[in-house]
Amino acid sequence: MSEKIHAGKGGFTLPAQAGMDDVVLDLAQRWGADAFRDSDGTELSESITELGYDIYSTLCLIRADQEWNNAHPEDHQQKFLYSTPQTARADTMEIEIMARYSKEQYRIDEINDCKKYWEVVNRTTGEVVPVSDWDYAEGVVTVRNCAKWNVYSVNFLVYQIWETTSMYNHITNNWGDKPHQSGIDPRKKETREHIYQFLVKWLETHPNTDWVRFTSMAYQFPIITNPKSETLYQDWYGYLDCMSAQALDEFEEKKGYRLRPNDIVDNGYFNSTDRVPTKAYLDWIEFVHEFMVEFTKQCVKQVHDAGKKAVMFYCDHWIGTEPYKPAFQEIGMDGIIGPCINGREVRRVADVPGGMLKELRLYPYFFEVDLMGEPTFKEGGDPVRDCKKYWMWIRRAMLRKLVHRIGYGGYLDLAIKFPDFVDYLEYQTKEYYALCENSQFTPAEAPLKVGILNAWGAHRSWGYDVTWPLGSITESLSGQPFDVEWICFDDIRGGVPERFDVIINYGYAGTSWSGGENWTDPRVVFAIREFVDSGGGLVGVFDPTSHENGGTFYQLWDILGVQKEYGLSGDCKKVIPTDIAQGHFIAADLASTKPALGKHVQTIYPCIESTQIIAKDDEGSVTIAANDFGKGRGVYLAGFELGAEQNRLLQRAIWFAAGREGEMEKRWFASNIETEIAAYPETGKYIVINNSNDPQTTTVVDGEGRAKTVELDANASAWFDFEGNEI
Amino acid sequence: MSEKIHAGKGGFTLPAQAGMDDVVLDLAQRWGADAFRDSDGTELSESITELGYDIYSTLCLIRADQEWNNAHPEDHQQKFLYSTPQTARADTMEIEIMARYSKEQYRIDEINDCKKYWEVVNRTTGEVVPVSDWDYAEGVVTVRNCAKWNVYSVNFLVYQIWETTSMYNHITNNWGDKPHQSGIDPRKKETREHIYQFLVKWLETHPNTDWVRFTSMAYQFPIITNPKSETLYQDWYGYLDCMSAQALDEFEEKKGYRLRPNDIVDNGYFNSTDRVPTKAYLDWIEFVHEFMVEFTKQCVKQVHDAGKKAVMFYCDHWIGTEPYKPAFQEIGMDGIIGPCINGREVRRVADVPGGMLKELRLYPYFFEVDLMGEPTFKEGGDPVRDCKKYWMWIRRAMLRKLVHRIGYGGYLDLAIKFPDFVDYLEYQTKEYYALCENSQFTPAEAPLKVGILNAWGAHRSWGYDVTWPLGSITESLSGQPFDVEWICFDDIRGGVPERFDVIINYGYAGTSWSGGENWTDPRVVFAIREFVDSGGGLVGVFDPTSHENGGTFYQLWDILGVQKEYGLSGDCKKVIPTDIAQGHFIAADLASTKPALGKHVQTIYPCIESTQIIAKDDEGSVTIAANDFGKGRGVYLAGFELGAEQNRLLQRAIWFAAGREGEMEKRWFASNIETEIAAYPETGKYIVINNSNDPQTTTVVDGEGRAKTVELDANASAWFDFEGNEI
Repeated sequence: MSEKIHAGKGGFTLPAQAGMDDVVLDLAQRWGADAFRDSDGTELSESITELGYDIYSTLCLIRADQEWNNAHPEDHQQKFLYSTPQTARADTMEIEIMARYSKEQYRIDEINDCKKYWEVVNRTTGEVVPVSDWDYAEGVVTVRNCAKWNVYSVNFLVYQIWETTSMYNHITNNWGDKPHQSGIDPRKKETREHIYQFLVKWLETHPNTDWVRFTSMAYQFPIITNPKSETLYQDWYGYLDCMSAQALDEFEEKKGYRLRPNDIVDNGYFNSTDRVPTKAYLDWIEFVHEFMVEFTKQCVKQVHDAGKKAVMFYCDHWIGTEPYKPAFQEIGMDGIIGPCINGREVRRVADVPGGMLKELRLYPYFFEVDLMGEPTFKEGGDPVRDCKKYWMWIRRAMLRKLVHRIGYGGYLDLAIKFPDFVDYLEYQTKEYYALCENSQFTPAEAPLKVGILNAWGAHRSWGYDVTWPLGSITESLSGQPFDVEWICFDDIRGGVPERFDVIINYGYAGTSWSGGENWTDPRVVFAIREFVDSGGGLVGVFDPTSHENGGTFYQLWDILGVQKEYGLSGDCKKVIPTDIAQGHFIAADLASTKPALGKHVQTIYPCIESTQIIAKDDEGSVTIAANDFGKGRGVYLAGFELGAEQNRLLQRAIWFAAGREGEMEKRWFASNIETEIAAYPETGKYIVINNSNDPQTTTVVDGEGRAKTVELDANASAWFDFEGNEI
Repeated sequence: MSEKIHAGKGGFTLPAQAGMDDVVLDLAQRWGADAFRDSDGTELSESITELGYDIYSTLCLIRADQEWNNAHPEDHQQKFLYSTPQTARADTMEIEIMARYSKEQYRIDEINDCKKYWEVVNRTTGEVVPVSDWDYAEGVVTVRNCAKWNVYSVNFLVYQIWETTSMYNHITNNWGDKPHQSGIDPRKKETREHIYQFLVKWLETHPNTDWVRFTSMAYQFPIITNPKSETLYQDWYGYLDCMSAQALDEFEEKKGYRLRPNDIVDNGYFNSTDRVPTKAYLDWIEFVHEFMVEFTKQCVKQVHDAGKKAVMFYCDHWIGTEPYKPAFQEIGMDGIIGPCINGREVRRVADVPGGMLKELRLYPYFFEVDLMGEPTFKEGGDPVRDCKKYWMWIRRAMLRKLVHRIGYGGYLDLAIKFPDFVDYLEYQTKEYYALCENSQFTPAEAPLKVGILNAWGAHRSWGYDVTWPLGSITESLSGQPFDVEWICFDDIRGGVPERFDVIINYGYAGTSWSGGENWTDPRVVFAIREFVDSGGGLVGVFDPTSHENGGTFYQLWDILGVQKEYGLSGDCKKVIPTDIAQGHFIAADLASTKPALGKHVQTIYPCIESTQIIAKDDEGSVTIAANDFGKGRGVYLAGFELGAEQNRLLQRAIWFAAGREGEMEKRWFASNIETEIAAYPETGKYIVINNSNDPQTTTVVDGEGRAKTVELDANASAWFDFEGNEI
């Protein structure tokens, strides 16, 4: 029956619930559902699973058998934590290593030899304290021979005794006495074998299940909490929860060197994805990935052997699977499902390589509160307002890259208390199905190829934006009419690949997103200069190409035309005029030369005479500039704040950087900045959308350069064929 | 006759001018002048010099004999410049090395061997290009075997053919055809001998001169100009103009290693005083200083031998004399005179060690335009407004540290066109004389000793503020009722000296003022932690104690209680509450918890639970915080903007950091923040000043804790004896 899923018309997954058969059937019809799913905390009754709809069954292998988990505490998942940095006031100090962490979440590892696996670090000098100078007992590390007034902390192993998603759901839904679930580590051989056997049994006992929805495979991205259950640390890409004493030993065997605990703890930064990754951390990621590919492959094989399909929730315990790495394809997963609140998250799923089914689980989740802790499906909440807001962001990204299915999750009994929400989903699903139908999942025309350059590249595609859930520049790019690809420095050290028209580098100085020390690699600056000189474009936002070297901070000042003053060159007078270049192409849709650019970078000044200043802030710092370099161009934006004006600004910046600004308004262009257009040459149709909460009139130019006026209600969209007839 | 000068009543130096004897005499009486001076461009007639007043005669030895200078072009002063960084587009590139520089100011050194003294640098890799790979001819360096798309520039020697002060005065006063004067280098033996002989003759031919006012000794601080005569670079402390091929060779001989040109050029930063100084640069300063002490000592000896006194203008060609270094005392200078536009500049002169006469040359200078190029003594100018503004800043600093004399410079014929200015100076001089009379140059009571800690310390005392001429935190400190001393990291590596109650560290990250890498020295953090733990105070402003190390950016986060987020720890959630500590001592005179702090540092968050949040900005970033540490305290200010409210804020911060906030209002305290009080125990008098342009009523508390209401007109001051009787 699961053939329906790929019918090419777009599908919808409805979170069903036992005892609500009539409601489920009614909503299935209104929302066009073709599949039902359960959620953490809900079950599907047999009466529902036998209605002929596809059945998704969630399965979280590492916490599915709590009995096993409870019997094997030594196989619980582990991670390295670091104790609160503590300043030595005497020769000896006692460090209560769990002080900042939740004891409900973690238990100190007293099984493996702490002298072998932990380290005490003098954070002032960076030196590791000799193991003879410290001891551990009952939650406390006692350090001797301390250097007074130096700062120390301990990198120590814990077992995670309350699994992260279980903890989140438990706390969010006030589950009170419901037992805390633990997660088990499949790296342990006996446990791994048990999981495989468990899965065989599970498949046998779920005859009505069509799709095993793995939520997800083994290792969660880290959410570290403190004793008050507040989140201390969270990184969607973090490789912390896949650690263990055994993994550390196996890593050494496989990679030929031993990781230091601090290679993972990273002085408390925990290798946040905002950090330029070290070689050790990249090796660690690869090591975990290699294991997870093997483990997941085996699980998927079992699912296939049982005649079912496997789909992975691309969140929660996705760590190690790495859908953007080539080996993911070897796993044989039939689909992936990503949670999605905005356009960036559409693209994070939609852009995953390979032909598997892609589905988005939209927000709001049918819980009483949302991810920000605000009320949703309860008094004070307004799920329609939330849903509509997210949909406006999501829809524009879907115009560029579509997914095969959408759906929701959570408790249906909460959702049906909001009839206007039920109505809104009818509208939303219709709009989604029209997009599937009229585009047939073929790509929209993209006149330019844009590369987003940072230290992570493709493996973290659509993985970063400045804010969340409302994004900034990444969000804007997710719906821009360009072919966007994420690339890393290794991709360009030998030269920028020919397919690119424009490279974008954005992020704060010193972060992985800007690139840090990579910009001192002569191969990197060679590649970009060669690329731009030959006609390519470089768009830099925030602190592009930044790293102090050779007397400059923005290494590609000669392309960008601007430089940043941060205190070292106050004596160097800035004599190049900062007159605004009147009527610049890039500024054409700005209401003023002081556009809202959020929290932007200061103090920026032109560093070469040729720089075109397009906008400045109240303090005179340049906020938008452009510059010619050989046959190409650089464009600088000091910041970015999501909005219609700024979307168009970015669009113009990219066209201008590519040197093709004359073409922008000639094909598939919507004049009103609140509206956007996307055309599907393969189906001969195009869509015009209104991103705003007001009615809009816009003039659209089609593929032949013919103009046409379109009126759209608030938030509405309209379809046309290539002759201009509304569909 | 010059004995008058030290009469203890305060003196005034009047810039006289030939042919204006009556005016000069009249003004001398009205302003209480006891000395006349000439200026660059003016002369004193014999009739004036014989009036019985002390006569100051300006003398700039290095440009005094233009005939000699013109005959010895090889002895003109030299410096290293660096050519505009240029991106290599091919194997070979031509660099026009003077492109960004004024050819009126500099001539390329074609006398000394460029292959020996210059270097071509690949700024991308930092490598020096082999001399075999480049040639120089006719203003152009041709570089071969370039790495394409790497950036190159040349560190090259020039002769300065137009002396800096001559150039400034010439351009400012539109001197048209008047010849450009050059400066000669006393390091050249023959020239040095000639200068000594010239001075002998000059002394013989100036019998009426009492004081030889050296303006100044040999080497100017750098003002580098471009072809449009715009200032490209200016650093009041810069050791660029004391360079020469000979000096480079002598340095090697004396210090045992050879400087690279880039040790001076510093990749184009020219060792700006904002940079953390390198050892090479400090050695270079010391090398020049050693030479200048010997040279100046000889000049002063000749002056003394002629029965005259020597006084040095502490500006222009002061480089190498280093009044704050111990060897300056060996020179035997009878006095120093500093230009002074604000309180910081008062203190820069007044705090110079030693008992020599100290004089301030106030602003506005009697020129048609001021240092900012705005009209002063011409149509559109308002010299009274300017003078009054400066005097308000100057007076409050003089309350703390007084100088023996004040005066003006320039063209008297310009000044007398503004009768209200002439009147105002009568008021100003009377106020100054009262201060001299009532304080008898004894120190005001200072209840706390404050150290300003940076990478320069005492040698650059009062050498930095965030803005000019209106300063910021340094300006505020110049008039605070504390004993302030500038110290460097070397002064504390062995422990903070006992005399200090509070240490202040302020400046932007990475600069010499904040301290940069010094903060990773365990001795430095040891010293400050030990100091604060024992009851001392640390006040940090902007980016105090900042350098990324061991997982923290503000190294003394445990004292300051706050940390800066700059993009690496976005994943680390900031869960410590940022509630404002209501009714905090430090905030007591703030109109709101969002005080104006100028361009301040963001994003600042509390990093330990004990942090007291005192103010936040609109984005929620902490702007003022305090924290206990042992027996001492830390206080953090994210920025500072000069004003009455902020002066009091800083005053409170210092008292609070010292743990003595209970004493602040008990002695010598003025309640109204627009007013200040200073008491002179040795004379038994105190003064109350009104810094504002409105009348003010204030309650002052005297040394016995007795309160008294004082009414002051706008800008006025009032003197009292310790019994509270107005004088």
